This record gives sequence, structure tokens and C-alpha cells, in this order.
Amino acid sequence: MMNIGIDVMGGDYAPDAVIEGSVDSLGHISQDETLVLIGDEPTILRKLEDMKAASSMFRIVHTSEVIEMADHPAKAFSQKKDSSIAVGYTMLKNGQLDGFCSAGNTGAMLVGASYTVNVIPGVFRPALATLLPCVDGRDSVILDVGLNPDCKPDVLLQYGILGSLYAKFVLKIDNPTIGLLNIGKEETKGTPSVKAAYELMKEHPGLNFIGNIEGHDMFNENVPDVVVCDGFVGNIVLKEAEAIYFLFKKRNLSDPFFDRLNYESIGGTPIVGINANVVIGHGISKRTAIMNMILQTRDVVRANLAQKIIEAI
Amino acid sequence: MMNIGIDVMGGDYAPDAVIEGSVDSLGHISQDETLVLIGDEPTILRKLEDMKAASSMFRIVHTSEVIEMADHPAKAFSQKKDSSIAVGYTMLKNGQLDGFCSAGNTGAMLVGASYTVNVIPGVFRPALATLLPCVDGRDSVILDVGLNPDCKPDVLLQYGILGSLYAKFVLKIDNPTIGLLNIGKEETKGTPSVKAAYELMKEHPGLNFIGNIEGHDMFNENVPDVVVCDGFVGNIVLKEAEAIYFLFKKRNLSDPFFDRLNYESIGGTPIVGINANVVIGHGISKRTAIMNMILQTRDVVRANLAQKIIEAI
Repeated sequence: MMNIGIDVMGGDYAPDAVIEGSVDSLGHISQDETLVLIGDEPTILRKLEDMKAASSMFRIVHTSEVIEMADHPAKAFSQKKDSSIAVGYTMLKNGQLDGFCSAGNTGAMLVGASYTVNVIPGVFRPALATLLPCVDGRDSVILDVGLNPDCKPDVLLQYGILGSLYAKFVLKIDNPTIGLLNIGKEETKGTPSVKAAYELMKEHPGLNFIGNIEGHDMFNENVPDVVVCDGFVGNIVLKEAEAIYFLFKKRNLSDPFFDRLNYESIGGTPIVGINANVVIGHGISKRTAIMNMILQTRDVVRANLAQKIIEAI
Repeated sequence: MMNIGIDVMGGDYAPDAVIEGSVDSLGHISQDETLVLIGDEPTILRKLEDMKAASSMFRIVHTSEVIEMADHPAKAFSQKKDSSIAVGYTMLKNGQLDGFCSAGNTGAMLVGASYTVNVIPGVFRPALATLLPCVDGRDSVILDVGLNPDCKPDVLLQYGILGSLYAKFVLKIDNPTIGLLNIGKEETKGTPSVKAAYELMKEHPGLNFIGNIEGHDMFNENVPDVVVCDGFVGNIVLKEAEAIYFLFKKRNLSDPFFDRLNYESIGGTPIVGINANVVIGHGISKRTAIMNMILQTRDVVRANLAQKIIEAI
């Protein structure tokens, strides 16, 4: 039995969009997977009734408090003990959940990750790992996309290892290729930290390191299965792709590849390097994005990514 | 009289594409502007004859050596004294040229910038400033896009000033807006260097600083006239846009905005902060890109950007 916890109260369109996305997910999960809706029970039951969805298809855990999007993360997390985020993390810690996802207050989700389930011993810094579509049909993992704006070389090396585990166990890629995002192919290019990371990655046994890749390699056949960068660069690369997708839609263009830049089809961003399977969704997630966040959490849970990292690090 | 020097021997498609682009430029420049073709004279004359273009429309300066794309920049620049790049810089220094452009060996162009015409006193680090299209029809200046991967806060502040002068004098924008590319709107976001740069920019008199912008602000109405970032981030942002344009064309899509992402329509990247007007073109420049590189050099020369920076710094 797998229990996947969902923060019903988190996100700009919560709780409606979260419940809708949860109902949509039912058709994609297997018999031994249970969706655990965490939030205000009367609201959940009313919405399910409106949707003519049987509440017996879910497990519902009532919570009485809500961490709002604008709340101060650490304060809200410690003070609102009966919020959906705090309860979700407690259930994760106690083994009542195998994974947890939320499109709510990202800061509070990160606080919960650090203070409740903790960083895996040996992991220097957890990262946010997301997927970027590639024109050849693959998805590539890019990390970090926002947790650590300034990364030391050993942290970048470890991101290569963490990303590699993600690609291997969640995306089922044998011997995934790893590249370092840089401003030139030559190993002498880049900041001192990136240059040193190149040396470390080149010499690390078992890492399928292909060297530096550049911005123009993104999205095409040259992009490796895992792209390593600091959280400053990764965040900007990801959001630039969002800007492109937004303009693409605004200008009424349509194309199967560019449509894959839609964050809604990606769903969420796992926090890799903590002692639990946690996925963070985009605050603006609507019904489809929520469904994909839940299914991505399911994939991470099926792979048991956190445990794989514990065993490897 | 304005003399614009063109490195005929530089670029993947040199000398043919450079001569073709030079001929195409003639229809766009004014009577008092002279294009000075620097390269192998017999080759230039033969090509002009093939094109049925009058050689009298140009000034031709013969050079006997070529700095190849793969040459070691500093070595080639000091050893090949009669190369088109070395001669171009000498002419710039002696006042025989008002501007110089090349799609050739970028490293050699940068060596020439530092050793022949020199950095403007008071400028910490020169930058490469390029234009990114905005969906509302504007172009925004982004700098640095590759010279300085690691920037201290005072360098980022100065990039704001240099970019502002570029926007004001070359793009003719009154009181241009300046933004700092970051991973969040709040002033507490980003690396220590970017956070400190925010403070410096906020307090700098006369700088129309609008605060942080994010990756998803790129290309849309929110993007300021000048985007400041270090050369690592700027290079990746620029090349990601190139990747997008390349895929857009490969997938046979067409749209007036996305077509503006074509590097060919931008032409080149001025080196700002040196004692001369120098523009570097993309190595893969063909005929149209070369023409736009020349016309952009003409715009920089007309604005006399280098002199404006000398007066302002």
C-alpha cells in the first residue's frame, strides 16, 4: 500500500483545483495506491459531492488551519500545527504517508522538509529538480532550480549524483548522462566554482559525465539526461522557458514540442536530498497541473527516490 | 566623416559572407560614412567584381595574415601583426577608424580591446551588451553576456550605468529603466553579490532602477530597458533564447515576435567600457547577420558610445 498525501489547502486555486485534480488522478493510479486528502473535511466532502465523486475513493484527514501563500514560512509552519502542510509532514515522518505534495507556500514546504523530515546524512544541500522537455521526446532533469543560488563545487558534484539517481530510478534511464551548464565547452570556462566542479565530476567514478553544455544545447538532442547548475542559473533558465511558453500561447501558436514547455504538464518539482518523497507544485497550478503534480509524486514514491538516495550517498 | 572598419577575414563564412554583407550595407549608410574593408585585397576585389559591386564604394586596407577561429587569441594577436584584427585595432587606436567590427576570433577581439585601445579609466570591467527583443516592440539591453562570469556588486552596479548609457545614446531611450536579473522580486533574494548590487543600485543617484526581475519577465512588457546580470547568467539566457529560435525554425513555425529572436537580425554585441567603438559578431554570421553587425556598429559610432561612457564615468 502506498499513501500519497495531498495538501488540499495550498495553491492559488485551492481547494477547488486541488480536489478536482485529485479526482482526475484516480483514473491513473493503481489499486494499491491511496490518495490522502489533507485539509478542511467539510469543504472536501462538499466539493466531492458537487463533483459526484465518491469520498470513499480517498482517505480524508481533517485539518483546521491554513498556511496562506503570503504567510511567513517558518513562523506559519511552527505556529499553525494543525495546518495541512504541518500535518502532512508529521504523517510523512511517522510513516503514515509515502509521499506528500503541495502547490502551497513553497517556503513553508521547505521549512517542513528541513525541520520535520530532515536532510539525508551526507547530503550537503537538498535541491529542487525539475524536468525540461527535449525535442527528441526525452525529458531532462535540471537541478538545482532555486534552493541554493550559490553552490560550491562539491555541492554541484553531488547534484550530479542526485540528478543521476532521479533519472535512473524515476525516469528509468540506464546510465544517465550528466552535463554541467556552462558558458563554453572547454573545461577552463566559467566561474571558479563551476571549473572546480568540472574537475570533480570528471574524476568521480560511476558518473556518466559528458562535460560542459551551453545554453544553446537546451531542449535539443545534445542535452544530457541531467543538467547540473546552481539554483540561481537553474531558476532563471526554467523561468525563461516559462516566459517563452507564455508568449507562445499568447500569440496563438501551437506545436507539440513547445506545448511541452507548459509547466502544467510537468506538475511539480521534487525536493531531492531529504528523508522523504516530497513534491512542490507551482502556486498557479490549476486542475491539470495538480493532477500531474500528484502523478509525479506517485512516480517518485514508486521509485522510492528518497530511499535510493539514502542507500547511494 | 565616419570610418567603419570591417574584419573581412573573420567568421565561419568569411570572407565571402562578410563582403556580401558589406555590399548590402551600402544601401543603409549615409554619404559621410565609409566602410573600410580590412583583409586580403585581391580576394576582396575579386569578390566585389563577381558581385558587380564597385570597389570605389569602399576603402580597402590590405592585410596579409589571418587570425583563424581556432587560433590561440593572445598568441595570434601578438604574432600576426598584419592580420585584419590587429590592423583594425591599430587603425582604431590611431583614429583612422571610428568603429570596428568582426565576426572572427572573439578571444582575439577581446585581447585587442584590452591591449590596444584599453579599458576606459574608471571602468572596472568591460562587458558584452546585446539586445533581446521584447513582445511590445522594444529591444532591451542585457549585459554582461559572457565577459565576466563572476561579478562583484560594484561591477554589476556599473553594468547598470553602462547599459543605461547604451540605451540612452544608441537606442535613444530617455531615462531608461534598469532591472537586476534575479530569482525573486524581493530584495533579499539571490546570491550575496546580487543582493549587495541591489542595495548599491537602489541608492545610486540618477539610475532609474526598478528592482529585481525574474526569468519569466524576459521578452514581455515587464522587462526593463536594461537587464543587468553577470556574464555567466547572461550568456546562458542569451543562448537559451538561441536554442528556442533554432527549434522554432526547425519546426517550421513562423511568428513576427519569435523571428526577432534570430541572432541574425541583431547582428553583434558591442564591447562596452573600452576606449573605442567595437562590435563582435557571431562566428556563424552569414550575409544578413554581417549586414546587421555593420549597421549596429554604425549606430554605436553615430552615438559615439565610447566617448559618452568616457564623459559619464
